[in-house]
Amino acid sequence: MRKEATMLRPTNNGDRYELTSPTAMPKAAGFLWNQQMMIQITCRGFATAQFMQPEPAKYAYAPNIEAKTFMQPEQNYYAHHPGRFVYVKDEDTGALFSAPYEPVRSQADRYVFSVGKTDVAWAVEQNGIRVEMVMGLPTHDVAELWTIKVTNLSARPRRLSVTPYFPIGFMSWMNQSAEWNPDLVGVVASCVTPYQKASEYFKNKFNKDKTYFICETQPDSWETNQQSFEGEGGIHNPSALQQPQLGCGDARYETPTAAVQYRLALNPGDSREYRFMFGPAYDEAEILSMRNRYLSKPAFTRTAAEYARYMEGGRGCLRIETPDKDLDNFVNHWLPRQVFYHGDVNRLTTDPQTRNYLQDNMGMNYIKPGVSRRAFLTAVSQQEPNGSMPDGILLAEGAELKYINQIPHTDHCVWLPVTLDVYLSETGDYGLLKEEVLSANGDNFTVFQRFSRAMDWLLRARDHRGLSYIAQGDWCDPMNMVGYKGRGVSGWLTLATAYALNLWAAVCEHEGESDLATRYRAGAKECNAAVNKHMWDGDWFARGITDDDVVFGIKKDGEGRIWLNPQTFAMLSGAASPEQIERILPQVDSQLSTPYGVLMFAPPFTKMREDVGRVTQKAIGSAENGAVYNHAGVFYIHSLYQLGGQQDRAYHLLRQLLPGPTEADYRQRGQLPIYIPNYYRGAWREFPRTAGRSSQLFNTGTVSWAYRCFVEGLCGLRGDAEGLVINPQLPSSWNSIKVTRQFRGATFHLDIRRADVDVITVKQGSRTLPDARITNIKAGETYQLSVLVPE
Amino acid sequence: MRKEATMLRPTNNGDRYELTSPTAMPKAAGFLWNQQMMIQITCRGFATAQFMQPEPAKYAYAPNIEAKTFMQPEQNYYAHHPGRFVYVKDEDTGALFSAPYEPVRSQADRYVFSVGKTDVAWAVEQNGIRVEMVMGLPTHDVAELWTIKVTNLSARPRRLSVTPYFPIGFMSWMNQSAEWNPDLVGVVASCVTPYQKASEYFKNKFNKDKTYFICETQPDSWETNQQSFEGEGGIHNPSALQQPQLGCGDARYETPTAAVQYRLALNPGDSREYRFMFGPAYDEAEILSMRNRYLSKPAFTRTAAEYARYMEGGRGCLRIETPDKDLDNFVNHWLPRQVFYHGDVNRLTTDPQTRNYLQDNMGMNYIKPGVSRRAFLTAVSQQEPNGSMPDGILLAEGAELKYINQIPHTDHCVWLPVTLDVYLSETGDYGLLKEEVLSANGDNFTVFQRFSRAMDWLLRARDHRGLSYIAQGDWCDPMNMVGYKGRGVSGWLTLATAYALNLWAAVCEHEGESDLATRYRAGAKECNAAVNKHMWDGDWFARGITDDDVVFGIKKDGEGRIWLNPQTFAMLSGAASPEQIERILPQVDSQLSTPYGVLMFAPPFTKMREDVGRVTQKAIGSAENGAVYNHAGVFYIHSLYQLGGQQDRAYHLLRQLLPGPTEADYRQRGQLPIYIPNYYRGAWREFPRTAGRSSQLFNTGTVSWAYRCFVEGLCGLRGDAEGLVINPQLPSSWNSIKVTRQFRGATFHLDIRRADVDVITVKQGSRTLPDARITNIKAGETYQLSVLVPE
Repeated sequence: MRKEATMLRPTNNGDRYELTSPTAMPKAAGFLWNQQMMIQITCRGFATAQFMQPEPAKYAYAPNIEAKTFMQPEQNYYAHHPGRFVYVKDEDTGALFSAPYEPVRSQADRYVFSVGKTDVAWAVEQNGIRVEMVMGLPTHDVAELWTIKVTNLSARPRRLSVTPYFPIGFMSWMNQSAEWNPDLVGVVASCVTPYQKASEYFKNKFNKDKTYFICETQPDSWETNQQSFEGEGGIHNPSALQQPQLGCGDARYETPTAAVQYRLALNPGDSREYRFMFGPAYDEAEILSMRNRYLSKPAFTRTAAEYARYMEGGRGCLRIETPDKDLDNFVNHWLPRQVFYHGDVNRLTTDPQTRNYLQDNMGMNYIKPGVSRRAFLTAVSQQEPNGSMPDGILLAEGAELKYINQIPHTDHCVWLPVTLDVYLSETGDYGLLKEEVLSANGDNFTVFQRFSRAMDWLLRARDHRGLSYIAQGDWCDPMNMVGYKGRGVSGWLTLATAYALNLWAAVCEHEGESDLATRYRAGAKECNAAVNKHMWDGDWFARGITDDDVVFGIKKDGEGRIWLNPQTFAMLSGAASPEQIERILPQVDSQLSTPYGVLMFAPPFTKMREDVGRVTQKAIGSAENGAVYNHAGVFYIHSLYQLGGQQDRAYHLLRQLLPGPTEADYRQRGQLPIYIPNYYRGAWREFPRTAGRSSQLFNTGTVSWAYRCFVEGLCGLRGDAEGLVINPQLPSSWNSIKVTRQFRGATFHLDIRRADVDVITVKQGSRTLPDARITNIKAGETYQLSVLVPE
Repeated sequence: MRKEATMLRPTNNGDRYELTSPTAMPKAAGFLWNQQMMIQITCRGFATAQFMQPEPAKYAYAPNIEAKTFMQPEQNYYAHHPGRFVYVKDEDTGALFSAPYEPVRSQADRYVFSVGKTDVAWAVEQNGIRVEMVMGLPTHDVAELWTIKVTNLSARPRRLSVTPYFPIGFMSWMNQSAEWNPDLVGVVASCVTPYQKASEYFKNKFNKDKTYFICETQPDSWETNQQSFEGEGGIHNPSALQQPQLGCGDARYETPTAAVQYRLALNPGDSREYRFMFGPAYDEAEILSMRNRYLSKPAFTRTAAEYARYMEGGRGCLRIETPDKDLDNFVNHWLPRQVFYHGDVNRLTTDPQTRNYLQDNMGMNYIKPGVSRRAFLTAVSQQEPNGSMPDGILLAEGAELKYINQIPHTDHCVWLPVTLDVYLSETGDYGLLKEEVLSANGDNFTVFQRFSRAMDWLLRARDHRGLSYIAQGDWCDPMNMVGYKGRGVSGWLTLATAYALNLWAAVCEHEGESDLATRYRAGAKECNAAVNKHMWDGDWFARGITDDDVVFGIKKDGEGRIWLNPQTFAMLSGAASPEQIERILPQVDSQLSTPYGVLMFAPPFTKMREDVGRVTQKAIGSAENGAVYNHAGVFYIHSLYQLGGQQDRAYHLLRQLLPGPTEADYRQRGQLPIYIPNYYRGAWREFPRTAGRSSQLFNTGTVSWAYRCFVEGLCGLRGDAEGLVINPQLPSSWNSIKVTRQFRGATFHLDIRRADVDVITVKQGSRTLPDARITNIKAGETYQLSVLVPE
């Protein structure tokens, strides 16, 4: 993978990745976002973009009526999928190609797809012509900023037509049209969001129902009508490109599109550069104002710098230098970026699932803990009167719980202390607990009281055996029929409750509430005992017990025999004794491990098991059924670091969260190593052809935990109430690493290396510290530390 | 149009139409249905199919997640739209084409798309090879039955690969897969209907979530994975066709498809014929049983004969022979077929709008009046306790009111007497009125009482001025904001109420209920007077008055100035005096008439008018906004026939309901003359390029009224309580027509011609009847009548 000849390579010190083939990994994509929009664009030019108004909306549409749903980038692309393309035709020879690759799909002489943290770019050479495309975003507005540059690489003058093609798609059955607007120098497509009830009209009234594509430079001709442009030639060979110029037509209840054509004569070595904007707007005045604000070379430059500053604000608290350079690239550049995305825009939803909202903000502690603090206040302000947490947290006025958030899940309270743990270790800000929060239902409690009420709810939401009810699901939300009748219980949730109670008990202790601490510790013990009594199966813990009292996730199950999460949380909660852990770990290794990470459960279900539910229907060996579900996997890694002495196993699994480093692995996963997807396809034994494939979805609670594993686990740099504890857990193949850690305003440079010591030994200059812990940290200071770890 | 050289021609005595170009009218389509399914398939091979389980469902899917919505065949097709294709490749020369036309789109030497009443067929010749494709349906099951025949037309032996390609598309994000089943000799694709709530699982549990494509003859190779088949070549030039055989692969959470390949050597003149089935199933046992029942040559023949008998049962009661042969074809073959479709399967919905259900069954009176009778009983059994009718009639257990049926409309009661009028005139069966009907809410009334209660409700649902409230819409449901605050009124509905009351008063009279008759006549008069007082605008009637007391559809309105329906119903209700009618007709001519029919209103709205609502958003000059909305148009024609003396205007408009007869008109409308669409695009003055285009949707209340206009109006053969009244209204350009009319079990052969008579004169043999009316009709008899009409 490190050789230049391979198809994928890091550049620019690892903050870009370049892919040199559009066919090796057809779904490989980059993504950009700001607080109002997100775009994921593949190496071939297919794009999926959404913006908030306030609910997610589109400005480039599928060719048919698309269901409103969550992002599903794992699905196949198809000829008329929304995309961003440029046709280049030699007007002397008639030779035609398109950049980046779709829709013409002809073989380039040279092809580079280059994904950066603040732009996505291509350079494609064919027929002696180079096309360079760059896409950026503004920081505070919804629009794509495109630069397209064409260069004559050949030794003779060339006459070319250059035709950017940005299909707009089927906007609405209620109304759609498009026309050229000479004042805006661009295509303006209009529609009306369909609705039925009169009341919906007022909700949609200020929707940005226009899509525009505007040009810095007046083109020679244009087309706004898809059918007129593509004609019988089709999108891979548009009929309009056989004519002296585009038809300059309109679309009237016909599919709108944006095609503009420049005719140019280029001498050898000459270039021409064009700039365009593509996005949604409410009206033409808004388009004009966007044009004035952004559509020029200086404005593009200024905007790119501003956007880079915005992204720089999401850098994260950790820089590492290890023997694993790909991992360094990921941890230093890409992982904090993905963590920042989650904390910054909450996956661009208005009703994030409560567990996601809390965990996404857990990651934000390592970037902007002030944001995480506010998130806790927002979350607990929506606590129910009975102490439970709702299924989703509403972030926008008028937002509603949608999709899965309408299905009752019982685990949300668990995540409060679990994520608070990181806030406190990063900031030491126990003051948060004293904040009073008035809820929407009118009750008024401190954060501390609200957490305690949530813990009390968890304790109550258990059956006569002391096991936690599952309702229609808990975390990793697929099992909807274990407990829909109201009796089924979750082994995992009972253990997670114990874990949460123990964490909260420690906070109670710190706050001087030792009665409460005792009570919650007793509760945790009760939970652990109940699970041990009803769910220990000899070598691992069962997953749950159904409404009809069937224990599942046990040896006698042919499918769904062992589940990862109960094992992980039995270690975190203290339910598993050292002897039990010794039995569990080899079972996880032998039954759940794959070359692409740890399976959520195994063997995969091949048919519906009605008393368990939805997970069993998930695509027999694909999707989330039997998948390498990274959120579950990373929790297992976290538990290994917590356990200690598992650094090799933990590092091996941590590394598997990412594609690579071999080219075979990249190809199989089909993804650039710039984010962790929510899952890789599972069923490695059953369907090896597709196992390992990336879901291509960068929305996942995995990333905050992965970052935590690097910070607290591998580098071992976790805060406590007074300072920073140092406890690196290097894999045995590593002799040394260098780490820079931002912590409570100070900068720590650590040189960590193996040495002939019995315990971890920390030196500041020549002084050896009494223990591996720094206290009295002063914001603004820089600490140079040398850390010696036993060989 | 009658010349052989034109692209469109009727054959087989007008019960088929042949189109000889796949590009002249790209959306031109045929359609077939049975009681469980419907398929509309274009000349180019794109198909839209639905089946009932019991809600409409698909077995061939779009490439992305499609919203569940009503049929929208006006939208553009796209490369990966579901379709049925056959690739034919010369394995010696490599030349490739596809039948019918998509996806390769190469120019055929000869192309015929042939649409019959019981099959859809193609014959395509290219490269010296003829491909014939025929699609039929069984009568009682959901499946497509395909015959594909390949003939070597050239003088030399040929080595070919023949590859039927039936894309299956993106079945479900929850689960999708496909594999070859050797026992079934075909592709079986499987999915799980996505759901969120556990309760939905039980609703979906018996869904037919498999799609199969099975072959009578074992192919040489196959592919079930779209990506493997199409590869980088794309759907227009699949990569798999460059290989010695297809890859025989599976699809695992990948897009399923069905491709099978036959390699064959054909001597000159030789043919090979294949049979296939494509459809949905619950499990493999069902597929096997379908295979056994249908997939053989004798079974195809038997099934086609059975299906032809089923269609023959929908023949209708009228055969005409006029100077307008295209019209004859339509009235004799196609219009009753479309009427039968509506009455037979209620547009394949489980909750037809009440007005649609009643009007669709009105047409069924001319085919199977027993069905219409049952429909009245079903409809009134769902009457509300207050006498009003619900927005939709539920036809299946568990069905719910969906889409527009959740929006309150106030016109449904009107349609009871309006459609009963035809039932009584066709059957004379006043006994229906005495049937007792127990409703779902437990009340028990006779049909007569229920109709009276509905009329009483209409009388009550009026404001202080005596005008009918509109709520969120009335008929032609686009105006949702006139009265959503509860005050706005509808001019049309007030007039329609008067029309309904008058019709019902006549029935009351017949039933000896003269008090009731008097009461309802007085109510009608009151309605008419109120409209005349508040809505007569000098030359036409206004459309309504908004919540905020703004009269609209009047001279001072720049847009939406004149609406057709109030004028029509003012003539039907008696509100319009002869003087007013003389003012109205020229206004309709000058403001609303177009080459494609009469506009619903004019001028079209160019922007939202908030106090009127939804119609104003409909695609500025397209869709239903300012459209030639045929249901409104045909009512106007009906009112002209009722008025009398308008035979030329009426015939002109009746003829416009259909594309043709000039080739220019066919091309502009883009539709075969085998059905009336719900609308043609309007805005003829504003957007002539697109005006006239067919919506391609054959679901429309228009057809029962069109048939009625032919039967009662043009041919003038309407029943009364005792017999058949004869009152033809021939256009002045016609001298004679011949008509065969089935009526109350008897057959009437009429020779109608102009003669030097003062009044219509009817002769039976040599005997001149005392008046133009036949009574004492005997079922089973044949009547030969000669009808003389004044010159």
